[in-house]
Amino acid sequence: MKTHPWFVSGFVDGEGSFLVSFSVRDKMSLGIEVRPSFTVSQHERSLKVLNSLQSYFGCGSIRFNNSDQTYKYEVRSLNDLIKKVIPHFEQYPLMTSKQSDFEALRDICRHMSEKTHLSPSGMTTIIKMAYQMNNLGARRYSKEDLLRIVGR
Amino acid sequence: MKTHPWFVSGFVDGEGSFLVSFSVRDKMSLGIEVRPSFTVSQHERSLKVLNSLQSYFGCGSIRFNNSDQTYKYEVRSLNDLIKKVIPHFEQYPLMTSKQSDFEALRDICRHMSEKTHLSPSGMTTIIKMAYQMNNLGARRYSKEDLLRIVGR
Repeated sequence: MKTHPWFVSGFVDGEGSFLVSFSVRDKMSLGIEVRPSFTVSQHERSLKVLNSLQSYFGCGSIRFNNSDQTYKYEVRSLNDLIKKVIPHFEQYPLMTSKQSDFEALRDICRHMSEKTHLSPSGMTTIIKMAYQMNNLGARRYSKEDLLRIVGR
Repeated sequence: MKTHPWFVSGFVDGEGSFLVSFSVRDKMSLGIEVRPSFTVSQHERSLKVLNSLQSYFGCGSIRFNNSDQTYKYEVRSLNDLIKKVIPHFEQYPLMTSKQSDFEALRDICRHMSEKTHLSPSGMTTIIKMAYQMNNLGARRYSKEDLLRIVGR
Protein backbone atom coordinates (compact mmCIF):
# COMPACT_ATOMS: atom_id res chain seq x y z
CA MET A 1 0.00 0.00 0.00
CA LYS A 2 1.37 3.41 -0.93
CA THR A 3 1.94 5.69 2.04
CA HIS A 4 -0.69 8.42 2.23
CA PRO A 5 0.71 11.99 2.26
CA TRP A 6 -1.23 12.80 5.43
CA PHE A 7 0.19 9.71 7.15
CA VAL A 8 3.65 11.04 6.30
CA SER A 9 2.87 14.41 7.88
CA GLY A 10 1.25 12.87 10.94
CA PHE A 11 4.16 10.52 11.52
CA VAL A 12 6.79 13.21 10.98
CA ASP A 13 4.88 15.55 13.28
CA GLY A 14 5.48 13.01 16.02
CA GLU A 15 8.82 11.50 15.12
CA GLY A 16 10.62 13.79 12.69
CA SER A 17 13.16 16.57 13.18
CA PHE A 18 13.94 19.65 11.17
CA LEU A 19 17.44 20.72 12.07
CA VAL A 20 19.90 23.36 10.99
CA SER A 21 23.36 22.66 12.34
CA PHE A 22 26.63 24.49 11.82
CA SER A 23 30.22 23.41 11.33
CA VAL A 24 33.20 25.66 11.77
CA ARG A 25 35.36 25.09 8.69
CA ASP A 26 38.28 27.27 7.74
CA LYS A 27 37.83 26.24 4.12
CA MET A 28 34.40 27.94 3.88
CA SER A 29 34.54 31.60 2.91
CA LEU A 30 32.87 32.77 6.12
CA GLY A 31 34.42 30.02 8.24
CA ILE A 32 31.04 28.37 8.82
CA GLU A 33 29.13 25.68 6.98
CA VAL A 34 25.30 25.62 7.32
CA ARG A 35 23.78 22.14 7.28
CA PRO A 36 20.01 21.87 7.10
CA SER A 37 18.52 18.40 7.46
CA PHE A 38 15.28 16.52 7.80
CA THR A 39 15.54 13.31 9.86
CA VAL A 40 13.32 10.58 11.29
CA SER A 41 14.70 7.90 13.62
CA GLN A 42 13.21 4.52 14.50
CA HIS A 43 14.08 1.28 16.19
CA GLU A 44 14.92 -1.59 13.85
CA ARG A 45 11.50 -3.18 14.46
CA SER A 46 9.93 -0.20 12.65
CA LEU A 47 12.51 0.16 9.88
CA LYS A 48 9.69 -0.43 7.39
CA VAL A 49 8.24 3.02 7.98
CA LEU A 50 11.60 4.65 7.20
CA ASN A 51 11.77 2.72 3.93
CA SER A 52 8.29 4.03 3.14
CA LEU A 53 9.36 7.62 3.84
CA GLN A 54 12.45 7.23 1.64
CA SER A 55 10.32 5.84 -1.13
CA TYR A 56 7.65 8.53 -0.64
CA PHE A 57 10.11 11.43 -0.83
CA GLY A 58 12.31 9.78 -3.46
CA CYS A 59 15.48 10.99 -1.76
CA GLY A 60 17.57 10.69 1.39
CA SER A 61 19.43 7.83 3.00
CA ILE A 62 18.87 5.41 5.88
CA ARG A 63 21.76 4.66 8.20
CA PHE A 64 22.26 2.79 11.45
CA ASN A 65 23.19 5.02 14.36
CA ASN A 66 25.45 3.04 16.63
CA SER A 67 25.22 5.46 19.54
CA ASP A 68 21.52 4.94 20.20
CA GLN A 69 20.99 1.72 18.20
CA THR A 70 18.35 3.25 15.93
CA TYR A 71 17.99 3.72 12.21
CA LYS A 72 17.86 7.24 10.86
CA TYR A 73 16.28 8.41 7.62
CA GLU A 74 17.98 11.63 6.62
CA VAL A 75 17.73 14.20 3.83
CA ARG A 76 20.65 16.63 3.76
CA SER A 77 20.78 17.66 0.10
CA LEU A 78 19.65 21.28 -0.25
CA ASN A 79 18.21 20.47 -3.65
CA ASP A 80 16.16 17.54 -2.30
CA LEU A 81 14.99 19.58 0.68
CA ILE A 82 13.81 22.39 -1.59
CA LYS A 83 12.33 20.29 -4.38
CA LYS A 84 10.94 17.28 -2.50
CA VAL A 85 10.65 17.72 1.27
CA ILE A 86 9.53 21.34 1.66
CA PRO A 87 6.73 21.19 -0.96
CA HIS A 88 5.26 18.16 0.80
CA PHE A 89 4.99 19.92 4.18
CA GLU A 90 3.60 23.05 2.57
CA GLN A 91 0.78 20.99 1.09
CA TYR A 92 0.26 18.75 4.16
CA PRO A 93 1.17 20.92 7.16
CA LEU A 94 2.16 19.77 10.62
CA MET A 95 -0.10 20.43 13.60
CA THR A 96 2.33 20.58 16.52
CA SER A 97 4.88 23.21 17.43
CA LYS A 98 7.21 21.38 15.02
CA GLN A 99 5.54 23.41 12.28
CA SER A 100 7.60 26.45 13.29
CA ASP A 101 10.82 24.39 13.05
CA PHE A 102 9.77 23.34 9.57
CA GLU A 103 9.12 26.97 8.61
CA ALA A 104 12.53 28.05 9.90
CA LEU A 105 14.26 25.23 7.99
CA ARG A 106 12.31 26.18 4.86
CA ASP A 107 13.26 29.84 5.12
CA ILE A 108 16.92 28.99 5.74
CA CYS A 109 16.99 26.62 2.75
CA ARG A 110 15.56 29.38 0.57
CA HIS A 111 18.20 31.82 1.81
CA MET A 112 20.81 29.21 0.92
CA SER A 113 19.43 28.59 -2.53
CA GLU A 114 19.62 32.33 -3.13
CA LYS A 115 23.22 32.24 -1.87
CA THR A 116 22.36 34.75 0.86
CA HIS A 117 24.43 32.71 3.30
CA LEU A 118 27.61 33.66 1.47
CA SER A 119 27.51 37.21 2.84
CA PRO A 120 28.20 37.97 6.51
CA SER A 121 24.81 39.66 6.95
CA GLY A 122 22.99 36.75 5.30
CA MET A 123 24.85 34.24 7.45
CA THR A 124 24.07 36.28 10.55
CA THR A 125 20.36 36.15 9.70
CA ILE A 126 20.54 32.38 9.20
CA ILE A 127 22.33 31.81 12.50
CA LYS A 128 19.72 33.85 14.37
CA MET A 129 16.87 32.01 12.66
CA ALA A 130 18.40 28.61 13.40
CA TYR A 131 18.91 29.38 17.07
CA GLN A 132 15.23 30.17 17.49
CA MET A 133 14.36 26.62 16.45
CA ASN A 134 13.01 24.33 19.08
CA ASN A 135 15.78 21.73 18.84
CA LEU A 136 16.28 19.44 21.75
CA GLY A 137 19.81 18.33 22.47
CA ALA A 138 22.98 20.30 22.77
CA ARG A 139 24.40 22.37 19.96
CA ARG A 140 28.13 22.17 19.38
CA TYR A 141 28.53 25.95 19.11
CA SER A 142 26.75 28.77 20.90
CA LYS A 143 25.05 31.40 18.80
CA GLU A 144 27.55 33.95 20.08
CA ASP A 145 30.52 31.81 18.95
CA LEU A 146 29.12 31.56 15.44
CA LEU A 147 28.27 35.25 15.18
CA ARG A 148 31.79 36.08 16.33
CA ILE A 149 33.26 33.89 13.58
CA VAL A 150 31.07 35.50 10.91
CA GLY A 151 32.08 38.94 12.16
CA ARG A 152 35.81 38.25 11.80
CA MET B 1 -9.16 22.42 8.87
CA LYS B 2 -10.56 19.01 9.81
CA THR B 3 -7.89 16.47 10.78
CA HIS B 4 -7.38 13.89 8.05
CA PRO B 5 -7.81 10.25 9.19
CA TRP B 6 -4.38 9.34 7.82
CA PHE B 7 -2.80 12.20 9.76
CA VAL B 8 -4.37 10.75 12.90
CA SER B 9 -2.86 7.33 12.20
CA GLY B 10 0.54 8.74 11.30
CA PHE B 11 0.66 10.87 14.42
CA VAL B 12 -0.53 8.08 16.71
CA ASP B 13 1.98 5.70 15.11
CA GLY B 14 4.68 8.02 16.39
CA GLU B 15 3.24 9.39 19.60
CA GLY B 16 0.39 7.18 20.74
CA SER B 17 0.22 4.23 23.13
CA PHE B 18 -2.08 1.24 23.30
CA LEU B 19 -1.93 -0.08 26.82
CA VAL B 20 -3.61 -2.77 28.85
CA SER B 21 -2.92 -2.39 32.54
CA PHE B 22 -4.15 -4.35 35.52
CA SER B 23 -5.25 -3.44 39.02
CA VAL B 24 -5.52 -5.88 41.85
CA ARG B 25 -8.92 -5.23 43.45
CA ASP B 26 -10.55 -7.48 45.96
CA LYS B 27 -13.95 -6.21 44.89
CA MET B 28 -13.61 -7.69 41.40
CA SER B 29 -14.81 -11.28 41.08
CA LEU B 30 -11.40 -12.57 39.97
CA GLY B 31 -9.47 -10.07 42.10
CA ILE B 32 -8.16 -8.26 39.00
CA GLU B 33 -9.43 -5.36 36.96
CA VAL B 34 -8.38 -5.09 33.29
CA ARG B 35 -7.92 -1.54 32.04
CA PRO B 36 -7.35 -1.03 28.32
CA SER B 37 -6.52 2.48 27.17
CA PHE B 38 -5.46 4.52 24.19
CA THR B 39 -3.32 7.56 25.05
CA VAL B 40 -1.33 10.31 23.35
CA SER B 41 0.82 12.75 25.33
CA GLN B 42 2.16 16.13 24.25
CA HIS B 43 3.83 19.20 25.66
CA GLU B 44 1.53 22.16 26.22
CA ARG B 45 2.88 23.92 23.12
CA SER B 46 1.26 21.16 21.02
CA LEU B 47 -1.97 20.82 23.00
CA LYS B 48 -3.83 21.75 19.81
CA VAL B 49 -3.16 18.36 18.26
CA LEU B 50 -4.68 16.61 21.30
CA ASN B 51 -7.81 18.73 20.96
CA SER B 52 -7.98 17.66 17.32
CA LEU B 53 -7.70 14.00 18.26
CA GLN B 54 -10.42 14.34 20.90
CA SER B 55 -12.65 16.04 18.37
CA TYR B 56 -11.79 13.49 15.66
CA PHE B 57 -12.61 10.46 17.84
CA GLY B 58 -15.52 12.16 19.59
CA CYS B 59 -14.55 10.67 22.94
CA GLY B 60 -11.86 10.61 25.61
CA SER B 61 -10.49 13.26 27.95
CA ILE B 62 -7.43 15.50 28.11
CA ARG B 63 -5.66 15.93 31.44
CA PHE B 64 -2.48 17.54 32.67
CA ASN B 65 0.06 15.07 33.99
CA ASN B 66 1.95 16.76 36.76
CA SER B 67 4.74 14.18 36.93
CA ASP B 68 6.13 14.85 33.45
CA GLN B 69 4.44 18.21 32.79
CA THR B 70 2.64 17.01 29.66
CA TYR B 71 -0.97 16.82 28.57
CA LYS B 72 -2.46 13.42 27.95
CA TYR B 73 -5.38 12.56 25.70
CA GLU B 74 -6.87 9.31 26.95
CA VAL B 75 -9.70 6.96 26.00
CA ARG B 76 -10.47 4.37 28.71
CA SER B 77 -14.13 3.59 28.05
CA LEU B 78 -14.46 0.07 26.63
CA ASN B 79 -17.46 1.19 24.63
CA ASP B 80 -15.59 4.12 23.07
CA LEU B 81 -12.55 1.96 22.35
CA ILE B 82 -14.70 -0.61 20.57
CA LYS B 83 -17.03 1.76 18.73
CA LYS B 84 -14.74 4.70 17.94
CA VAL B 85 -11.03 4.03 18.34
CA ILE B 86 -10.63 0.46 17.07
CA PRO B 87 -12.64 0.95 13.83
CA HIS B 88 -10.46 3.93 12.94
CA PHE B 89 -7.20 1.97 13.19
CA GLU B 90 -8.66 -0.95 11.30
CA GLN B 91 -9.47 1.34 8.41
CA TYR B 92 -6.25 3.40 8.63
CA PRO B 93 -3.61 0.99 9.94
CA LEU B 94 -0.34 1.85 11.65
CA MET B 95 2.98 1.11 9.94
CA THR B 96 5.36 0.62 12.86
CA SER B 97 5.61 -2.21 15.36
CA LYS B 98 2.90 -0.34 17.32
CA GLN B 99 0.42 -2.07 15.03
CA SER B 100 0.85 -5.29 17.02
CA ASP B 101 0.10 -3.41 20.26
CA PHE B 102 -3.05 -2.07 18.66
CA GLU B 103 -4.07 -5.59 17.59
CA ALA B 104 -3.51 -6.95 21.11
CA LEU B 105 -5.57 -4.12 22.62
CA ARG B 106 -8.30 -4.73 20.05
CA ASP B 107 -8.44 -8.44 20.78
CA ILE B 108 -8.48 -7.86 24.54
CA CYS B 109 -11.30 -5.30 24.20
CA ARG B 110 -13.31 -7.83 22.20
CA HIS B 111 -12.74 -10.48 24.85
CA MET B 112 -13.96 -7.98 27.42
CA SER B 113 -17.07 -7.05 25.45
CA GLU B 114 -17.88 -10.76 25.26
CA LYS B 115 -17.34 -10.96 29.06
CA THR B 116 -14.65 -13.59 28.55
CA HIS B 117 -12.53 -11.84 31.18
CA LEU B 118 -15.00 -12.83 33.87
CA SER B 119 -13.83 -16.45 33.80
CA PRO B 120 -10.40 -17.49 35.11
CA SER B 121 -9.40 -19.02 31.77
CA GLY B 122 -10.49 -15.90 29.87
CA MET B 123 -8.62 -13.64 32.27
CA THR B 124 -5.54 -15.86 31.95
CA THR B 125 -5.66 -15.45 28.16
CA ILE B 126 -5.98 -11.67 28.50
CA ILE B 127 -3.06 -11.42 30.92
CA LYS B 128 -0.84 -13.43 28.59
CA MET B 129 -1.83 -11.31 25.58
CA ALA B 130 -1.23 -8.07 27.47
CA TYR B 131 2.22 -9.11 28.61
CA GLN B 132 3.29 -9.72 25.02
CA MET B 133 2.63 -6.06 24.22
CA ASN B 134 5.59 -3.89 23.54
CA ASN B 135 4.96 -1.46 26.39
CA LEU B 136 7.82 0.63 27.61
CA GLY B 137 7.94 1.45 31.27
CA ALA B 138 7.49 -0.70 34.31
CA ARG B 139 4.36 -2.65 35.01
CA ARG B 140 3.12 -2.65 38.56
CA TYR B 141 2.55 -6.39 38.64
CA SER B 142 4.51 -9.23 37.05
CA LYS B 143 2.62 -11.62 34.80
CA GLU B 144 3.26 -14.38 37.32
CA ASP B 145 1.72 -12.35 40.15
CA LEU B 146 -1.48 -11.78 38.16
CA LEU B 147 -1.75 -15.39 37.03
CA ARG B 148 -1.33 -16.48 40.62
CA ILE B 149 -4.22 -14.22 41.70
CA VAL B 150 -6.50 -15.53 38.94
CA GLY B 151 -5.64 -19.10 39.92
CA ARG B 152 -6.63 -18.57 43.54
